[in-house]
Amino acid sequence: MTKDPVVAVAGATGAVGREMLRILAERDFPAKEIIPLASSRSAGSKIEYKDSKLIVQELTEDSFKGVDLAIFSAGGGTSEKYAPIAAKSGCVVVDNSSFWRMDPDVPLVVPEVNPEDLEKHQGIIANPNCSTIQMVVVLKPLHDVSRIKRVVVSTYQAVSGSGQKAVHELETQVKQLFNMEEVTPSVYPYQIAFNCIPHLDAFLDNGYTKEEMKMVNETVKIMGDESVKVTATTVRVPVFFGHSESLNVQTESRISREDARAILTQAPGIRVMDNPEEKIYPMPLFAAGKDETFVGRIREDQSTENALDMWVVADNIRKGAALNAVQIAEFLLVKDLVRVP
Amino acid sequence: MTKDPVVAVAGATGAVGREMLRILAERDFPAKEIIPLASSRSAGSKIEYKDSKLIVQELTEDSFKGVDLAIFSAGGGTSEKYAPIAAKSGCVVVDNSSFWRMDPDVPLVVPEVNPEDLEKHQGIIANPNCSTIQMVVVLKPLHDVSRIKRVVVSTYQAVSGSGQKAVHELETQVKQLFNMEEVTPSVYPYQIAFNCIPHLDAFLDNGYTKEEMKMVNETVKIMGDESVKVTATTVRVPVFFGHSESLNVQTESRISREDARAILTQAPGIRVMDNPEEKIYPMPLFAAGKDETFVGRIREDQSTENALDMWVVADNIRKGAALNAVQIAEFLLVKDLVRVP
Repeated sequence: MTKDPVVAVAGATGAVGREMLRILAERDFPAKEIIPLASSRSAGSKIEYKDSKLIVQELTEDSFKGVDLAIFSAGGGTSEKYAPIAAKSGCVVVDNSSFWRMDPDVPLVVPEVNPEDLEKHQGIIANPNCSTIQMVVVLKPLHDVSRIKRVVVSTYQAVSGSGQKAVHELETQVKQLFNMEEVTPSVYPYQIAFNCIPHLDAFLDNGYTKEEMKMVNETVKIMGDESVKVTATTVRVPVFFGHSESLNVQTESRISREDARAILTQAPGIRVMDNPEEKIYPMPLFAAGKDETFVGRIREDQSTENALDMWVVADNIRKGAALNAVQIAEFLLVKDLVRVP
Repeated sequence: MTKDPVVAVAGATGAVGREMLRILAERDFPAKEIIPLASSRSAGSKIEYKDSKLIVQELTEDSFKGVDLAIFSAGGGTSEKYAPIAAKSGCVVVDNSSFWRMDPDVPLVVPEVNPEDLEKHQGIIANPNCSTIQMVVVLKPLHDVSRIKRVVVSTYQAVSGSGQKAVHELETQVKQLFNMEEVTPSVYPYQIAFNCIPHLDAFLDNGYTKEEMKMVNETVKIMGDESVKVTATTVRVPVFFGHSESLNVQTESRISREDARAILTQAPGIRVMDNPEEKIYPMPLFAAGKDETFVGRIREDQSTENALDMWVVADNIRKGAALNAVQIAEFLLVKDLVRVP
């Protein structure tokens, strides 16, 4: 491929969309043109990109004419409607919503884990759920050494995962509490300031939330192995940026603490921060704004054979969303999987 | 027993000590006299009890003469030194520190779980760790129906568990951040505001923290069953009051979601809050100031046979510390295990 693609970012004014533009600029993504798309409400506003300002255009059925690559982060309904329109016009779509993720014709990709699945794309590639991405980045290199049988994961998820409104809500609630004012939840069902809410997305009949079942089902699809069993409890915590996860991982054979550290140190996209005696372990405070998935507190589970406990933290807006989508786009270009006329 | 005991509260000016006095008053604990004890620094200060003010006395080797029952919450070193002195003088000690908990001659008691162990006391009874108490209150009734084989627990622990200084530290840090000032951690190794710190108490050679191993070892002692295996990851979160726990519990035979709800609904000290469709589940926001251990998000684990996922929340200062100690004291009186001359 010699020519640079025309790239559209749908949902460019949201928290993830803005981060996508920042990351495209940071990484000097090879684009002939970047077109920010959003709803009519935001159309006409200006958004920074490198040294220039781009004018946000309204997302319509005609938006993808002449566009080679589109990155969507505009909600499931928008992706449902517009991703097929874009794909039909020859544009390759990387979609951050949950709508297409479990479609058998749509690859669900974390570039460190299953880049080969990109080759099967039919115009749409799905970006996994934030909490799934950082987990599979850590699971895959261990799975390659000793098959993972079962994972018990509990999450500590930042409010930025619910968008800019939720960031504002946490900030506002803290101020309200400190001023002895009434707290008025809007994004979340209850006060999130100084609280933990074990409720992300809708509840299903089996008692899990959709967010929890995403971690169960997306992990199997990304890892390409139905024998990997996951149970998840997902919890919102009063943190602005950075999702944390407590992982218990049962493997077919024993992986020692030292071996786990060595395996993860060599794995792509991971930074091992595991020197507890020196107070070195991952935390949202350090992971915010970074690209890597951080892992620490690695230890052999004393309650059973062949299991590890770990603590995994990543920036949910970057690796959990915008960065992973841009990495997919980069792989698509490198593998020549985008047609640029 | 006809006569009311003379009761001392050692560490009366700390967060847990103050709560102990509040709870003794609330429950109209039958005491001939209440003597608040503290270090020389606090001696002479006044502390409210019912409608009167008590004068804090200095804790010395002579403090326990004429005292029938003493509740300690003054740190491990104080308990190590003074609990045997008190016991030798005929006083029964209920100790909230970790110092005596694993001593084979010291019962470790949660009244809902193993009140019968009180009968073996030799002058000192230990109050378990906060995160252990709320877990075993929920585990025991399930264990009685189907033996618990393994528990994977991840905690979300409030700063009040580290004392009043930590409550002040979280408050101060939030204000510093909102005023764009530098954050200066003191109680915790890192900023706790809007962060999660996977580090409570010291690290051990096996990679676990002491806090985590307390949950492993104390659970076995309280449940009186060495076959109950626990692995724990303990995490401090920016919440003032109320510890939360994500529990995965593997049992010998299947317990359905409905059966688990029914068993826990009938169990002492528990309030089942488990109607997710109506947004009813436990949270620190609701548990603070309450006596019960709250459990919800009960569901059958889809990753393996015979396992349940649950979400357990309790007020760490009340059930996790002061209330459990006062409940032990009440049981001692009811069972006539305190000698009142």
